[in-house]
Amino acid sequence: MRKAVFISLWKKAKMYNPQLTDDGKLKHLLSIEGLPKSIITQILDTAESFVGVAEREVKKVPLLRGKTVCNIFFENSTRTRTTFEIAAKRLSADVINLNVSTSSQSKGETILDTVDNLTAMHADMFVIRHAQSGAAHFIARHVKPHIHVINAGDGRHAHPTQALLDVFTIRRYKPEMHNLRVALVGDVLHSRVARSEIHALTTLGVPEVRVIAPKTLLPEHVEKMGVHVYHDMAAGLKDVDVVMMLRLQNERMTGALLPSAQEYFKTFGLTQEKLALAKPDAIVTHPGPMNRGIEIDSSVADGRQSVILPQVTYGIAVRMAVMSILAGNN
Amino acid sequence: MRKAVFISLWKKAKMYNPQLTDDGKLKHLLSIEGLPKSIITQILDTAESFVGVAEREVKKVPLLRGKTVCNIFFENSTRTRTTFEIAAKRLSADVINLNVSTSSQSKGETILDTVDNLTAMHADMFVIRHAQSGAAHFIARHVKPHIHVINAGDGRHAHPTQALLDVFTIRRYKPEMHNLRVALVGDVLHSRVARSEIHALTTLGVPEVRVIAPKTLLPEHVEKMGVHVYHDMAAGLKDVDVVMMLRLQNERMTGALLPSAQEYFKTFGLTQEKLALAKPDAIVTHPGPMNRGIEIDSSVADGRQSVILPQVTYGIAVRMAVMSILAGNN
Amino acid sequence: MRKAVFISLWKKAKMYNPQLTDDGKLKHLLSIEGLPKSIITQILDTAESFVGVAEREVKKVPLLRGKTVCNIFFENSTRTRTTFEIAAKRLSADVINLNVSTSSQSKGETILDTVDNLTAMHADMFVIRHAQSGAAHFIARHVKPHIHVINAGDGRHAHPTQALLDVFTIRRYKPEMHNLRVALVGDVLHSRVARSEIHALTTLGVPEVRVIAPKTLLPEHVEKMGVHVYHDMAAGLKDVDVVMMLRLQNERMTGALLPSAQEYFKTFGLTQEKLALAKPDAIVTHPGPMNRGIEIDSSVADGRQSVILPQVTYGIAVRMAVMSILAGNN
Repeated sequence: MRKAVFISLWKKAKMYNPQLTDDGKLKHLLSIEGLPKSIITQILDTAESFVGVAEREVKKVPLLRGKTVCNIFFENSTRTRTTFEIAAKRLSADVINLNVSTSSQSKGETILDTVDNLTAMHADMFVIRHAQSGAAHFIARHVKPHIHVINAGDGRHAHPTQALLDVFTIRRYKPEMHNLRVALVGDVLHSRVARSEIHALTTLGVPEVRVIAPKTLLPEHVEKMGVHVYHDMAAGLKDVDVVMMLRLQNERMTGALLPSAQEYFKTFGLTQEKLALAKPDAIVTHPGPMNRGIEIDSSVADGRQSVILPQVTYGIAVRMAVMSILAGNN
Repeated sequence: MRKAVFISLWKKAKMYNPQLTDDGKLKHLLSIEGLPKSIITQILDTAESFVGVAEREVKKVPLLRGKTVCNIFFENSTRTRTTFEIAAKRLSADVINLNVSTSSQSKGETILDTVDNLTAMHADMFVIRHAQSGAAHFIARHVKPHIHVINAGDGRHAHPTQALLDVFTIRRYKPEMHNLRVALVGDVLHSRVARSEIHALTTLGVPEVRVIAPKTLLPEHVEKMGVHVYHDMAAGLKDVDVVMMLRLQNERMTGALLPSAQEYFKTFGLTQEKLALAKPDAIVTHPGPMNRGIEIDSSVADGRQSVILPQVTYGIAVRMAVMSILAGNN
Repeated sequence: MRKAVFISLWKKAKMYNPQLTDDGKLKHLLSIEGLPKSIITQILDTAESFVGVAEREVKKVPLLRGKTVCNIFFENSTRTRTTFEIAAKRLSADVINLNVSTSSQSKGETILDTVDNLTAMHADMFVIRHAQSGAAHFIARHVKPHIHVINAGDGRHAHPTQALLDVFTIRRYKPEMHNLRVALVGDVLHSRVARSEIHALTTLGVPEVRVIAPKTLLPEHVEKMGVHVYHDMAAGLKDVDVVMMLRLQNERMTGALLPSAQEYFKTFGLTQEKLALAKPDAIVTHPGPMNRGIEIDSSVADGRQSVILPQVTYGIAVRMAVMSILAGNN
């Protein structure tokens, strides 16, 4: 009896969790929300094995040989596209780059027709970037069973591989995650990274996650995500182990949420002085690209506590891990 | 004596048939016109063997390993470029994408200089897309003997791989081609696909090919291509085995050839009701991208009689077949 | 004592020679200036071995397998990008094309952040094209030791692979380089190719290098580069073995340095008549893309003395040589 109820609940949960197969394996990577700790840990552990590949003479493994990975970018992002392209090629996949904004969209083809067409060409994996929240979920709900969808950023919603590489980097430098105090600083409101990061940290057992931002850059009810809210850098950075800077999404801001960039830098920009309030061995992350002199000072960005470039390195390993796990779960 | 006349005629014919080598093998694929039935059949039969490759774990064969395939697109078409790129990569070729409109053209380099340069780089195959009719022929006439040219669409003239995948799809669903009644519906006037399709069907022995369109969307003297002309869907679709929809080329129409899109849909749009006039097991094709609600209703596009997505799948196999046959005919 | 002085001088020289490793091997290819004759010869000799690869059935060698080559083009040039892409793929590298002007630059990311990020992704080689002189040097000075930088054209400064393929071509047709008389004709002022060519010719021991141009298209003090200056084609072409045409950089010219294009062609355009003044077996080079009818007549461009297409062919071999030498010097 109880088992039947459990199964029914579990099936219901599954409806909200299109990322997992019936037996709980990773099918798509759409958001950190809904990923059990076991799967996040599987991704991070698998990524460890790929860190070494990048340091080899021949940086290639044949795990995705003969597979077709389509980078479908409805919003241009050379930077993100490059990370997925490198990851896929190191796994020996064939990579097809599609910048859809400039092509079939203009002929009136719908997103789903584009996706159906690529599916019919026996693509194996879609890496989706879209300006609208929910686009990757929408596509994942629609595709044939053999297709795996990876969300490479959808509007303000999620950017799960970024969050995974962030926690991978943190775990590498601070393996005792259940003892950490982490602060996210800056534009939480417009950041698809922030949401994913908070979920990833919480799921991996980080006991204290703070957000530090002006009220105008925080979503309503952000405390409900289990974070402590600060509007003051001095208080918020006190004794933290990790400072996760967010990019000021200039291009996404509409209206006058902020005073000038200089004013912002003065109050919320990460300088050596402000960083000194954190623990002496605190590390600093940033998802890039950085606005130097706006949300972060160059002396911090290039300083000894910065792990911003290691994040990029581990980003390849994490994306290889996600792709190889997905490809293995057919 | 008669033999000499024959040879002379044949040589003359050959002048108009730059697609074939001296011993009658496929050298370029420029248009369906001028392709003997034996070669069309060779392509379709070869494509059959590639359908299976796309369903394998490792979707790759080494037939074009070490060959360089250049997708030279003077007109942007992500969709078509993708199909050729996937086909070439599954054959293990190196693929170079060139969007020429935005590059050397602006430096005043002529098409032939572009082609000469790529030839000098030891490219093996050119896939050409151009807004002007005859561009692929022009290039094929000019290139060095070891280069193979594939027409991926030139103006209103031809799009032979599309026509080949169409007849491949039809043959798969309706193998008795000498018993078929086929109707092409819509904008025959602006369609490079329609011309190629009619030639392919006729060459393969389809006894009855119809075109259904308003007078303003038909070329003059279209009957001379051996088709039956209808201006009425009810009469034209009666008892056909195959309904081949054409895309309404909005972007190519100049002037007021048409009333409104709604008006067009009402009269010539393919709905379930109109389709019911065809044979009960009739299939529906469309070259894509579709204008849903203009030339075709979504319930038909996604319905049980639609073979539109199989067309896309077979399109990869057909392009692999064309490329591998060309590469083998050196 | 003398040894100490020598070492100190040598170290100083090294500061100005970021292209070489401590033990004098090629580390970056930034300009012909500063390349010792031994290295130029090594590149040309290595290129000889790659000429054959392009003529094989399988045009591929595994020398760069598992390496990541990034074509970072801050200025669009499909033509140049294609030559490097083909060269890298024939060496079995993974190639990533980045058109940076349209991507991270617009998000305010600096060049160095872009380069740092790609370095962190374990790229192995950067091919840099930039509108500003010195861009490739700037990047080379900054990158991590394992990264190799190739200058694919920076402003008016240099385009070393073009100069190398030019001298490679000349050496193939006229192996006795210490007996040659070479004339460069045209827009020396705006040409990044001209500077590199003059250095390459001089270094390889060509005894007489002439430049022929109107005063307005010559840099000040050009004689200091060791060339003989002519403002008259009749005198300048007299008895030369090699005529190296330069492209008229229409798109870089500001102001009225020239009369009309017709006027220019009349005076400095290379015609059959003018070419007849050179030695009967003189060869004609052009870096492409050509302005036919402006700096060169089509009858010369396509004539028996033209080696313009062989230049393109050898360009692939020379770029393969540069890349494989760099990759071998880790």
